[in-house]
Amino acid sequence: METSKAEALKRMKSIAGHVRGIEKMLQADEYCIDVIKQIQAVQAALNKVSTTLLEGHLHSCVITAVQGEDMKERERVLEEIANVFSTATKV
Amino acid sequence: METSKAEALKRMKSIAGHVRGIEKMLQADEYCIDVIKQIQAVQAALNKVSTTLLEGHLHSCVITAVQGEDMKERERVLEEIANVFSTATKV
Amino acid sequence: METSKAEALKRMKSIAGHVRGIEKMLQADEYCIDVIKQIQAVQAALNKVSTTLLEGHLHSCVITAVQGEDMKERERVLEEIANVFSTATKV
Amino acid sequence: METSKAEALKRMKSIAGHVRGIEKMLQADEYCIDVIKQIQAVQAALNKVSTTLLEGHLHSCVITAVQGEDMKERERVLEEIANVFSTATKV
Repeated sequence: METSKAEALKRMKSIAGHVRGIEKMLQADEYCIDVIKQIQAVQAALNKVSTTLLEGHLHSCVITAVQGEDMKERERVLEEIANVFSTATKV
Repeated sequence: METSKAEALKRMKSIAGHVRGIEKMLQADEYCIDVIKQIQAVQAALNKVSTTLLEGHLHSCVITAVQGEDMKERERVLEEIANVFSTATKV
Repeated sequence: METSKAEALKRMKSIAGHVRGIEKMLQADEYCIDVIKQIQAVQAALNKVSTTLLEGHLHSCVITAVQGEDMKERERVLEEIANVFSTATKV
Repeated sequence: METSKAEALKRMKSIAGHVRGIEKMLQADEYCIDVIKQIQAVQAALNKVSTTLLEGHLHSCVITAVQGEDMKERERVLEEIANVFSTATKV
């Protein structure tokens, strides 16, 4: 596994724990605003995972595709990056 | 439990499953962009939970505080909403 | 004009100047990433304007509506806040 | 000028008009929520400009840098993309 994926996995395990904690807050009928703040913390953590994964991707698959001979594959890989960026600005 | 919290809890359970699925994708060394897309889907789902909770909060605590006599409490409750909005625009 | 609107107007004038600056960068064919960074700065500035306006709104119209007798109007005002929050999490 | 920059410039001119319209709304003391909605529309339009510029950038500078011999320059260009993505998830 690449370093970026190993780091992402570690972070996701921590996020999974955070999500379970939010479930418990809801079951305990905790104050809504406190729950929303924890959700926002999870979202910030997820942003970091995405960025970590994108960095790894840029330094592996993207380099391979852009240096390769297959124009269609290169196009596909670059388009994917524009797409995740576009979605990122909307999430 | 209020309806909005019950709905939020149901959604959080589903999100917890989604997060575990992403962990498995990373363990199986799946394609980075596919993982990022799933993370973005989780974030969209979390946005819905936050909005659901905020709606419930506006129709309960906020009404109570704004109609109450305690000016400091009212101020605190309104400030909290401005704060979660401010964070929402940054997450 | 309320203080929050006056402050928002001042910020919007500054943002308008920033936007014109970005137009000039594009006309001068400046480096794409530098332009994107300036666009992101404008978006952060717009987030501040929205938060400023929402704060003013919470302390004026929302208080009036929630303390008023018109249940339909109160409902409408609270729903609007949930809506701008929901959109904020997507923009 | 590249096609993506020309398109971005056209969109920025339209956004500049939109920003002036928001200034007028504030001067006319229009309803806060209506102003916030217009600000959110401007932000969605700015997201499109950023994505357009990034697409153009990926298909020009990024290809040149990744296919080039200068490892440091390649690193710099890939890092920039991770950075704008990271900021995008926060704006």
